[in-house]
Amino acid sequence: MKKYRLEAFSDGVIAILITIMVLNMEVPRGISVDKLVPVIPVFLTYVLSFIYLAIYWSNHHHLFEAAATINRPILWANLNLLFWLSLIPFATGWMGENHFAPGPAALYGLVLLFAAMSYWGLRQLVLASLASQARLHHPVGRNWKGWLATVLYLPAIVLAFLWEWVSLALYVLTALLWLIPDRRLQQALVDRKSG
Amino acid sequence: MKKYRLEAFSDGVIAILITIMVLNMEVPRGISVDKLVPVIPVFLTYVLSFIYLAIYWSNHHHLFEAAATINRPILWANLNLLFWLSLIPFATGWMGENHFAPGPAALYGLVLLFAAMSYWGLRQLVLASLASQARLHHPVGRNWKGWLATVLYLPAIVLAFLWEWVSLALYVLTALLWLIPDRRLQQALVDRKSG
Amino acid sequence: MKKYRLEAFSDGVIAILITIMVLNMEVPRGISVDKLVPVIPVFLTYVLSFIYLAIYWSNHHHLFEAAATINRPILWANLNLLFWLSLIPFATGWMGENHFAPGPAALYGLVLLFAAMSYWGLRQLVLASLASQARLHHPVGRNWKGWLATVLYLPAIVLAFLWEWVSLALYVLTALLWLIPDRRLQQALVDRKSG
Amino acid sequence: MKKYRLEAFSDGVIAILITIMVLNMEVPRGISVDKLVPVIPVFLTYVLSFIYLAIYWSNHHHLFEAAATINRPILWANLNLLFWLSLIPFATGWMGENHFAPGPAALYGLVLLFAAMSYWGLRQLVLASLASQARLHHPVGRNWKGWLATVLYLPAIVLAFLWEWVSLALYVLTALLWLIPDRRLQQALVDRKSG
Repeated sequence: MKKYRLEAFSDGVIAILITIMVLNMEVPRGISVDKLVPVIPVFLTYVLSFIYLAIYWSNHHHLFEAAATINRPILWANLNLLFWLSLIPFATGWMGENHFAPGPAALYGLVLLFAAMSYWGLRQLVLASLASQARLHHPVGRNWKGWLATVLYLPAIVLAFLWEWVSLALYVLTALLWLIPDRRLQQALVDRKSG
Repeated sequence: MKKYRLEAFSDGVIAILITIMVLNMEVPRGISVDKLVPVIPVFLTYVLSFIYLAIYWSNHHHLFEAAATINRPILWANLNLLFWLSLIPFATGWMGENHFAPGPAALYGLVLLFAAMSYWGLRQLVLASLASQARLHHPVGRNWKGWLATVLYLPAIVLAFLWEWVSLALYVLTALLWLIPDRRLQQALVDRKSG
Repeated sequence: MKKYRLEAFSDGVIAILITIMVLNMEVPRGISVDKLVPVIPVFLTYVLSFIYLAIYWSNHHHLFEAAATINRPILWANLNLLFWLSLIPFATGWMGENHFAPGPAALYGLVLLFAAMSYWGLRQLVLASLASQARLHHPVGRNWKGWLATVLYLPAIVLAFLWEWVSLALYVLTALLWLIPDRRLQQALVDRKSG
Repeated sequence: MKKYRLEAFSDGVIAILITIMVLNMEVPRGISVDKLVPVIPVFLTYVLSFIYLAIYWSNHHHLFEAAATINRPILWANLNLLFWLSLIPFATGWMGENHFAPGPAALYGLVLLFAAMSYWGLRQLVLASLASQARLHHPVGRNWKGWLATVLYLPAIVLAFLWEWVSLALYVLTALLWLIPDRRLQQALVDRKSG
């Protein structure tokens, strides 16, 4: 099974999700600049979600550049990831319109948690497929970022009901964490090319 | 006629349809978690329709991977399929907002029925084009899933007016049915590669 | 200049336009099937516009399959075509919501007229580029369908203010006219392949 | 790192942005042609923004046709550009609905300014990557259009609060300026092909 359509479809879905969120920013009903003030929290949530989706797209890009071929489980793990990502605009809209209130902030964390776990599952399948083709024992177990993200999202969801700003800070922190490239995948790519 | 643009255009349309449906989930007007309760039926319908569109995309992917080339009838049969798929968000929105009421549930089934028949027609044309190129007699007649889906959708549409939950159960059942891969197409692909 | 990005971008824009129109069909506020009655004219206009956009996509597909390379004028003529096509959902929405009233029906024809002229211009540029490369004298002048479409759209726009159903019939007729394939382009493609 | 996914993703985002804006043009609530009058300023802003996004897409196309390969900084500079472009529909909607009032006209200029600076950054990275590969000293410093655009946007933002029509004229002027092709990039492309 060739990978270009899986990539093209994922690109399409992520491109739409990343732009659908701007529709949540309602055009203000006046002309003075201070009419933009209520839009600011919506805008900031948009920035955060844009960065998250950009990270997922970038990691997805690296992951499938490493992938040699795709099989049926990878195809459905990818659709599962796209499903959780597709809920980000909804969670973003609710959180942005309510200035980071407890309920919306917890839901946002929950969607991010499921997206992170879906990506982790997809990544395992791609690495396993790579390992089986290269007949190599890839160290697929040591995925510290996947674990750390889960460890950060879980308290963030609970803390949203006590101090929502702490959970927001944890979302920003996790985004920064994911911005660091995944060296192991790049190594796998180099191995495959030189192998 | 090359197939990559037909694939790219179909990917684009299905990617948009699958994400447009989240716009149907209106952001709640409060901050407490129980404001999410009225969104739950909309969410569940979204999940069902996401799975249906994912199945169509996945089957479309397999179908055109098998296809060697496309002709004018295939191009228009594909546009016909995309037309019926494009009505899924509308039917999903109506059914989700009305908690699976009879009328919306019947319309949903009708759209699924026409989509299934369109896919069946497209599949026949691709298999016929494959057979004519390979000068093989492909067993294109035995499409039991296409028939079974029609046999399930038709009573589901009628039953929607009596017990809407039965028809909903039939939609879920048919989705599960379609999740099973189409072995014959994969065989055709293997034949073409080794042939 | 390579043509795959121009094709991919046009595919994206047309895929979005063709699906955006379903958003114009507002989900009815009741559950009985007769709530669908006011949606019917919107649905029929959607069908007509879907067919028009499908025709443009299909013709665009054939045109650029024939094209060997693209230059700057072709790139901007293509963007010009996409601009006029992008107004179709607006014109469709206005006409559909008002049951084919004179004003909306005339605007719809005006948008179709400009789209047809833009396509005609794009086609001339592609054929001219093909002719200059192949050092052939292609009979680019005899574009009877382009002329006939213009001849039909112009009275349709005027007649919309007298008998809107006549102009609607002319729109349907022109769509049927465009469904017939363009033999000359296919010939050019065959010439280039065998040349 | 291959460039085709970056191109496909950017094509997707720009295609969505360019078509999302038509959704801002609300379908009029009457049937007479003069109901279109309030839509005219929205339409004109749409035309201006369509041209801007078309220019960005066209320049992006040329830029990455010249690019041989992409690295991590280029990938994120591209996402940064897409972020600022994604704000154009919001700024367009606000300006169009308020007939070019001071506040909206200044915000529109601000978004254009950040988009222009992002493109300038992306272009520097691509040219630097080209230069390092070709071991050539490309004259990357002389980007007079980038400078001139900044010089025109800055007063346009300030002047929006005094004479909004002057700033609108400056936006139109800058668009015309960018329509002129970038000869240096085309030269780099020729060099790479013949080199």
